[in-house]
Amino acid sequence: MNHIYSYHHLREFTREVFIHMGCSLEHAAMASEVLVSADLRGIDSHGVARLSGYVRLWEAGRINPKPNIRIVHETPSTAVVDGDSGLGLVVAPFAMEVAMQKAAAVGSGWVSVKHSNHFGIAGYHAMKALERDMIGMAMTNASPLVAPTFAKERMLGTNPIAVAIPADQQPPFVADFATTTAANGKLEILQRKSEAAPVGWIQDKDGHSSTNPHELKDGGALLPLGGDREHGSHKGYCLGAIVDIFSAVLSGANYGPWAPPFVSFLPLPPDPVGEGLGHFFGAMRVDAFRPADEFKQHMDKWIGRFRSATPVEGQQVLIPGDPEREMQKARLEEGIPVLAPVVKDLREVADRFKLNF
Amino acid sequence: MNHIYSYHHLREFTREVFIHMGCSLEHAAMASEVLVSADLRGIDSHGVARLSGYVRLWEAGRINPKPNIRIVHETPSTAVVDGDSGLGLVVAPFAMEVAMQKAAAVGSGWVSVKHSNHFGIAGYHAMKALERDMIGMAMTNASPLVAPTFAKERMLGTNPIAVAIPADQQPPFVADFATTTAANGKLEILQRKSEAAPVGWIQDKDGHSSTNPHELKDGGALLPLGGDREHGSHKGYCLGAIVDIFSAVLSGANYGPWAPPFVSFLPLPPDPVGEGLGHFFGAMRVDAFRPADEFKQHMDKWIGRFRSATPVEGQQVLIPGDPEREMQKARLEEGIPVLAPVVKDLREVADRFKLNF
Repeated sequence: MNHIYSYHHLREFTREVFIHMGCSLEHAAMASEVLVSADLRGIDSHGVARLSGYVRLWEAGRINPKPNIRIVHETPSTAVVDGDSGLGLVVAPFAMEVAMQKAAAVGSGWVSVKHSNHFGIAGYHAMKALERDMIGMAMTNASPLVAPTFAKERMLGTNPIAVAIPADQQPPFVADFATTTAANGKLEILQRKSEAAPVGWIQDKDGHSSTNPHELKDGGALLPLGGDREHGSHKGYCLGAIVDIFSAVLSGANYGPWAPPFVSFLPLPPDPVGEGLGHFFGAMRVDAFRPADEFKQHMDKWIGRFRSATPVEGQQVLIPGDPEREMQKARLEEGIPVLAPVVKDLREVADRFKLNF
Repeated sequence: MNHIYSYHHLREFTREVFIHMGCSLEHAAMASEVLVSADLRGIDSHGVARLSGYVRLWEAGRINPKPNIRIVHETPSTAVVDGDSGLGLVVAPFAMEVAMQKAAAVGSGWVSVKHSNHFGIAGYHAMKALERDMIGMAMTNASPLVAPTFAKERMLGTNPIAVAIPADQQPPFVADFATTTAANGKLEILQRKSEAAPVGWIQDKDGHSSTNPHELKDGGALLPLGGDREHGSHKGYCLGAIVDIFSAVLSGANYGPWAPPFVSFLPLPPDPVGEGLGHFFGAMRVDAFRPADEFKQHMDKWIGRFRSATPVEGQQVLIPGDPEREMQKARLEEGIPVLAPVVKDLREVADRFKLNF
């Protein structure tokens, strides 16, 4: 049973919750916009479904509602930002803004972030660059759930990569994907229904291929994009590792198995190697390469040509970002369906802060 | 039947060939070093096996042996390089050097290249940054062999991505991979033996999964990393598309299905959308983020921890770059095996230029 809520309702409720956690009005507005953009774009696992998780992290003292977010090191085209244990939902927009300002000044900007928390969907941050005729990039490390090729042990997060590229008349190219075969959110859907997962998504605690969606509770792991060695899982492992290193080793955050868990009931790993979670952002002005109009007209041509590639019978070739944009349009008009267990969670959050939901 | 040649012998022969094509001594030395680094690192499909292909492209007038390689647009952290139809094997080192000089000056450098040709292995170029305590990146578009998710049509090349990251006592992290399930070189090995390919590598002309390694001759296609939609092929498609756009739309090269073919017997696509093939290079100084010693010590810790991740029984967890580095060590000592058909090819090249092989 889904309940339908308007975007405005979910965003407003989320904003109130962040205010009650002690966030400034500005931060609460920003954090709610970022969080609920996930629901709007159809990435339900990363939106209001996580709000109670953020509240519990705050209750456990792992989120600072009044962070002093600041640049701690910089060059003309790079910076390291210290998130001061703030919500990733406000740390990330700060860091992305730094990247874009550097791009405005010297062509490109690259910002690695430490001492942060989960930042919502990577795509939101990358897309900020589009308004300024820039290419935007965002990535983050996350709680270890993924086993490298040939490993039993969970060493990496689902470590997503987002890249947003502006076009002219066409809608922009927006890629936003976990570096695993399937995002954890997709597995959660199967867990709820107790349906088997496709081969190549997960392995059991001994590293054998499994289709049991509950395998992670018993020491199993998600698999890097590719699934197994024969199908290129070493490439997915490379991608997840690159995200981890850019986000956390460059910045001084915790990397690999030391990345702090999102769920508050899991203890922080002992002997941390850095501070908090890490992110990485990039912005490149397209006119730092060629005139923006020219670039965007060629992007129109690229998009038009790929959209009209001869499809497999009964299918349609998509451009990255198409499904999420259509979802956003539909959900703004028709409302956002929220699963019953998430509604229950949100009502508990409402009670906790004496709010209505 | 393999013949064994020393690295020195292959490199010297290759250098002579480039000199006879009209390259300067400097360019011939550079091009031979780049090309034979593929054989040294075990990526046999991209080394001397391609030399006759470069010669035929030159005979067809598609390679300029005396190119005027130059920066045509730049900002403090970005540039576009025009390769003047030169060998990618010399255009790429020029562009990577520009990226590193910009990184030295302002923290990072990003160079998109047009009007180039095939550049050998991406990893060679990315690794150039290691000597200067920089993170190096290299990517390129290539002849269309890959069908996007849900397409029958070949729209993208195998579009590799390489990322090289320095460490301290540990050898560096060097990822270098095609954005397809399997590189074309791996398929070529199966073609020679007429052995079936694993499911997920290729599709037939109608877009159905196939295991016939000769499928590409009949209108089939390589598949993006992931293989099919259920296993994340849309992510491999995103990666290949990003490489294409960064390499060719940013620079003004030919993109997507307009990318010029490597084989000289295929005509250039009509109505080109740009000039030649495109590449993209990046360099980031690690001390543009944190002190280089500190970063490299954490990379040692990262590498050590991942190398010691609990392995699946009978396996060993690898760090990206391990297999190629071991191959290079062995081949420098024991020589490089070259397949009989490649030896035959090289002897024909030798005859063509009245050289010994």
